[in-house]
Amino acid sequence: MKSLLEIGEAAKSAKRVLAVTDTEKRNAALLAIASGLRKDVKEILQANRLDLENGEKAGLSAALLDRLALDEARIEGICAGVEKVAALPDPVGRLLDRVTRPNGLRIDKVSVPIGTIAVIFEARPNVSADSAALCLKSGNAAILRGGKEAIHSNMALVNSMRSAVEDAGLPADCIQLVEDTSRQSANELMTLNGYVDLLIPRGGRGLIQAVVQNASVPVIETGAGTCHVYVDRAADLEMALNILDNAKTSRPSVCNACECVLVHREVAQAFLPAMAARLAAHNVEIRADEQARAILPQATAATQDDWGREYNDYILACRIVDDVAQAVEHIAQYGTGHSEAIVTADEQTAAYFLANVDAAAVYHNASTRFTDGGEFGLGAEIGISTQKLHARGPLGLNELTSYKYIVHGNGQIR
Amino acid sequence: MKSLLEIGEAAKSAKRVLAVTDTEKRNAALLAIASGLRKDVKEILQANRLDLENGEKAGLSAALLDRLALDEARIEGICAGVEKVAALPDPVGRLLDRVTRPNGLRIDKVSVPIGTIAVIFEARPNVSADSAALCLKSGNAAILRGGKEAIHSNMALVNSMRSAVEDAGLPADCIQLVEDTSRQSANELMTLNGYVDLLIPRGGRGLIQAVVQNASVPVIETGAGTCHVYVDRAADLEMALNILDNAKTSRPSVCNACECVLVHREVAQAFLPAMAARLAAHNVEIRADEQARAILPQATAATQDDWGREYNDYILACRIVDDVAQAVEHIAQYGTGHSEAIVTADEQTAAYFLANVDAAAVYHNASTRFTDGGEFGLGAEIGISTQKLHARGPLGLNELTSYKYIVHGNGQIR
Repeated sequence: MKSLLEIGEAAKSAKRVLAVTDTEKRNAALLAIASGLRKDVKEILQANRLDLENGEKAGLSAALLDRLALDEARIEGICAGVEKVAALPDPVGRLLDRVTRPNGLRIDKVSVPIGTIAVIFEARPNVSADSAALCLKSGNAAILRGGKEAIHSNMALVNSMRSAVEDAGLPADCIQLVEDTSRQSANELMTLNGYVDLLIPRGGRGLIQAVVQNASVPVIETGAGTCHVYVDRAADLEMALNILDNAKTSRPSVCNACECVLVHREVAQAFLPAMAARLAAHNVEIRADEQARAILPQATAATQDDWGREYNDYILACRIVDDVAQAVEHIAQYGTGHSEAIVTADEQTAAYFLANVDAAAVYHNASTRFTDGGEFGLGAEIGISTQKLHARGPLGLNELTSYKYIVHGNGQIR
Repeated sequence: MKSLLEIGEAAKSAKRVLAVTDTEKRNAALLAIASGLRKDVKEILQANRLDLENGEKAGLSAALLDRLALDEARIEGICAGVEKVAALPDPVGRLLDRVTRPNGLRIDKVSVPIGTIAVIFEARPNVSADSAALCLKSGNAAILRGGKEAIHSNMALVNSMRSAVEDAGLPADCIQLVEDTSRQSANELMTLNGYVDLLIPRGGRGLIQAVVQNASVPVIETGAGTCHVYVDRAADLEMALNILDNAKTSRPSVCNACECVLVHREVAQAFLPAMAARLAAHNVEIRADEQARAILPQATAATQDDWGREYNDYILACRIVDDVAQAVEHIAQYGTGHSEAIVTADEQTAAYFLANVDAAAVYHNASTRFTDGGEFGLGAEIGISTQKLHARGPLGLNELTSYKYIVHGNGQIR
């Protein structure tokens, strides 16, 4: 088994080759990956079966086993995803800016790969193929470190991808897996300064917080989302119902789902009973403040702990507010800077909300569920950033690049 | 004395006000700062005298005392700098991108302040005014933490700036100084997650490394520069002499100064003696490899330790290489990703160098000394990033912003 330092060195060599590889070559490697995975489907499913058996023995929950499981359809989905990435525009080599200075220097700002991107993830083996494809497309060497539950699946997937990349004339080390799944290997990866240019944790809040606390390499924090929908006094209540229902119940486990509704006092009497009736179809538990419970006595009493909570479940916190300013205040205090929506027909109120709420995405009359690389037209995403450095919101291919300044002179000195 | 947590909370309030303040108000505050500093020059110089006296007692070096010292001319320089920042274009509120999706959602990507920016610096008190001005212009709350040597000067400068900002109708807490200069306060600031959106260390390599190792908040690494000039076989040797001389001797203490010259074997015989003669005017010590010493016997013998070394002094490492590929290899191994130059008349060789060298700025036929916010036309800079995340090279006002997606709908659900 390679040490982390050896993996880092190998990535350093691979990234230098990748940095000067043209679009066609990287795309050919992606297509080779897709056909390689199709060819190796038997070996991959066999490895996956081993992980599933071990998982059952270890008593993993049914939900976790489902995330871990692969079948032919899921592998075909992975392959189609890789081919889709191949078809996207090349994020590398874009001329971002050009200036000619009074002294005649021409300064071009050009997008380049970041270098080596490490991804730490949990039980879902598709993340390895998915992340590797996005890194390869954007000219970055990938170091993948999945959870121990998926180690055999990941080894099979990564072996297949490495062969394909090599067959396509690129170094196999463009894609590497950390086979040591101990906590120590994760910690070493987080502090591999000089080798890892960017570390992206993809997983639950525990993983992300561990990475943020322990990493000394640059990190993009992803994922945590406590999203609010504010139903204003001037809201079209039918529209508000549709948006809230969609934001809460279309997929409660994801980070762009709504966790809390804030309702303007003047429409609470009309809106809350209709909301409760609508959400009853999904058995949504409503945890309401005292004022809302005066209207909805069947709701659970919210405690302080419910504000800012990410349930990822069919539970909705509910609070009555005096006006948009109080809604903004609540979000400032309890939001995670992910996605926040206002429903209102009043343009001025909407403008206030959109300007004053500090989040990656702010919505006027639309569901928070749209915060997604595909929905934003980015083609693909490697996660959703909730920090403000480098990239915010969905991380597409462009967000996996950096830039360099290329300066052309004819002897200028300063 | 406020605790770090209290400072963080105060910045959180101030940044929310700043985030929705218009250009005119922020510029008015900057102009108020400049006139305030001019008005308070006596108090500032008095405080500075105290720092200088303490510094002398503590046995600080003459160089450090010089960096610490203020006088009327230096304060006027600070004020002029602040006024220059006020005159620059507003980096906030730029429409970076706009798409309308097939479902009718209009998605605007708009630049916004990062939030709270903390700056850790050393003995130069002008850094506090300079950093505060750039943060204020870009709508960010600033938390400044200077070295203990400059504490009285920094307190005087920051008190003056806070009054001016308040007079201009903005919260004084837009600019805060950490008055506790203990190591512990620095460590607390580096781990003030949830309050500090970006931490920028401005100082020597020791400070920067301490921040990179210990910070859990997002950091931009700045400053370390081991820059190379490669003199190709096809170089105009007169041009190469001028560029190298400028890169090495115009200001050896800065990070964009050249530390190592790489000379193509075929021109070494012609170039090295001329180089030695030219650099003798500044008594530059040349530390050469064996092959170069065969031509320049008077040079010191370089040791392994000289490759990649940042002298910040009148010392130059010197190595003969076989070709541009070996030059690129040397830079990949020993460079810090700051600024690298090639001198050549051969366009193909230049293109190879510019594509294969991974640095914030790569130069063809120009001095590395141009890597600077002013020289790049950014108007001002808060440092030079040597990492690839968020921003690379000179950090101007645009680099002190993030963005948010503002999404306009009419009831869209997913």
